[in-house]
Amino acid sequence: MTTTATPTRVIYDTDPGVDDAIALYFALAHPAIDVVGITTTFGNVSVEQAAANALYLAALAGYAHIPVTKGVAAPLAKHAEPPPAFIHGADGLGNLPSRQATSNQLDTRSSAQFIVDMARANPGNITLVAVGPLGNVSLALQLEPQLPMLLRDVVIMGGTVLEPGNVSPVAEANIWNDPLAADHVFAAGFQLTMVGLDVTHKVVTELALFDAIASHQQHPATDTLRHAVAFYADFYSGLHDTIQNKGCFAHDLLAFVYVVAPELFGVDSGVIRVAVDGHANGQTMMNRRAHSNYPQAGWADGRLPTQVCMRVDAQACLALFESTLMDSAWLQPARTHR
Amino acid sequence: MTTTATPTRVIYDTDPGVDDAIALYFALAHPAIDVVGITTTFGNVSVEQAAANALYLAALAGYAHIPVTKGVAAPLAKHAEPPPAFIHGADGLGNLPSRQATSNQLDTRSSAQFIVDMARANPGNITLVAVGPLGNVSLALQLEPQLPMLLRDVVIMGGTVLEPGNVSPVAEANIWNDPLAADHVFAAGFQLTMVGLDVTHKVVTELALFDAIASHQQHPATDTLRHAVAFYADFYSGLHDTIQNKGCFAHDLLAFVYVVAPELFGVDSGVIRVAVDGHANGQTMMNRRAHSNYPQAGWADGRLPTQVCMRVDAQACLALFESTLMDSAWLQPARTHR
Repeated sequence: MTTTATPTRVIYDTDPGVDDAIALYFALAHPAIDVVGITTTFGNVSVEQAAANALYLAALAGYAHIPVTKGVAAPLAKHAEPPPAFIHGADGLGNLPSRQATSNQLDTRSSAQFIVDMARANPGNITLVAVGPLGNVSLALQLEPQLPMLLRDVVIMGGTVLEPGNVSPVAEANIWNDPLAADHVFAAGFQLTMVGLDVTHKVVTELALFDAIASHQQHPATDTLRHAVAFYADFYSGLHDTIQNKGCFAHDLLAFVYVVAPELFGVDSGVIRVAVDGHANGQTMMNRRAHSNYPQAGWADGRLPTQVCMRVDAQACLALFESTLMDSAWLQPARTHR
Repeated sequence: MTTTATPTRVIYDTDPGVDDAIALYFALAHPAIDVVGITTTFGNVSVEQAAANALYLAALAGYAHIPVTKGVAAPLAKHAEPPPAFIHGADGLGNLPSRQATSNQLDTRSSAQFIVDMARANPGNITLVAVGPLGNVSLALQLEPQLPMLLRDVVIMGGTVLEPGNVSPVAEANIWNDPLAADHVFAAGFQLTMVGLDVTHKVVTELALFDAIASHQQHPATDTLRHAVAFYADFYSGLHDTIQNKGCFAHDLLAFVYVVAPELFGVDSGVIRVAVDGHANGQTMMNRRAHSNYPQAGWADGRLPTQVCMRVDAQACLALFESTLMDSAWLQPARTHR
């Protein structure tokens, strides 16, 4: 997952969402990442809005050729929460005043089927970066139980171990939105890395940086990003001491930073279980002890450990993001397939 | 709860247990604590064994006058676990080779009724130190719903917030032994302090110290303590890096250290909920954020915050323990009521 001559082929499973948009533009801009598909899910917005936003964000940046699919619309086995319009805007992108006309269309396959098809066609050669609720990945596992062998690895943004949750004292929003799907994914045997609040709450992307990028690029894509981030930053203002009205957490972005620069993270390894009911619902519980003499039978239940990002070099992440987005080469109005 | 001319009147709810015995002898030895009753519960041993051990430990040290009661024998609503004989010995005191004859007898009241009677007779004047599963306290609350107003305060040893659990990755043994009773206690509105693994795993009482105390006191009580600790230390040897075969964690002891020296602890305040089912069972989940904009409705549900010990001056705790137990004044073969 380090920078090489051949970029990492990534399927991006996403619910855009402002930080999803930031992450997408980082991925498109970074030379070591090749986004081969965008699979959408409900989460920050409805799945219909997520699909529309993915199409729009890709086309606006000159990547209309990337396949975009629509995925699951609701959790596996819990009441669906209303999309948090107060966080990402009713449209998921900070209530854009208008949108340019674009002509790209959805791939007709489900997100899960697209993931399975791509993995079968490129065995061991696809990284799945999943930054929303994990229903598409769970469904793909049901369609193709060998998926953990077919994908190179999976990096998720979601969960928390030591950092307080953002939807309950112990739960992070993506996992809480579909705890059963998430537990299915943690149990499946993927080469799996979790990028959760333990690191994302330590990295703040400031609004001033998006101003500078938009000013430097002079492009509708970076103008749109700046507008969306301003709305998102308003939500965070006053909510967290570390934010201080200056910007927003880099949640989804850090999943892609991990793909190209894993050395910026401190990673611990341990079995994860997701609480699927009660007041713990959506919590990612990690076995953090090397030994496991616990009498509670069946806790690990043969699960492979997840690599959990617990520490991060925030300044280096921000510098990488800035240099990548400032690069003038990636935004082309009529960009063709690389 | 600081040292004053009038000692703090304490009911000690306990399941002795080796660290319970250490804690009892610290409490008896400390001039600022007046143990006015010992209420027993199942936990480290059966409640019958716990009651026998409490009678024996008190009599051996010259405190046969302290009332001892027998309490709940099983959890409120879960399968009872077998007592962990491999930790505390089959007899709870490291398999003592013999016991002296003693003549003190159980108070015939249940532990819960004794707690209620004492609290009603001394309103606002009793501190309850509870270091086992919390069934007696839960039952006392059912007998007397005004108990939180009648007791001065409650200090429990149990639970964990950031430190890994000792019976599952997220659960501490006392809470896990009766999660529903514990949640009842956390919800009840006591002036409540939790002394859990976050601090007790940072304080190791070394076997060499118990050797020195036994050698200095030359008394059957401290000989017994030394024997019990040697067994308990064997269990811990190799289990934890911080132990290094030298001794045992100071779990129950620290609840009494908090009573006489709260300034040795760093305390955070927050609502606690206990997970009562699934793989989170027995976890003490704490709301650690000052604000609570969480969408998960009803999480706090009007609960008062618990004071949770998160940091501790380990060296000062150990120095206090050593100086208190080395004091030659407290052990008297035929001690009468103070």
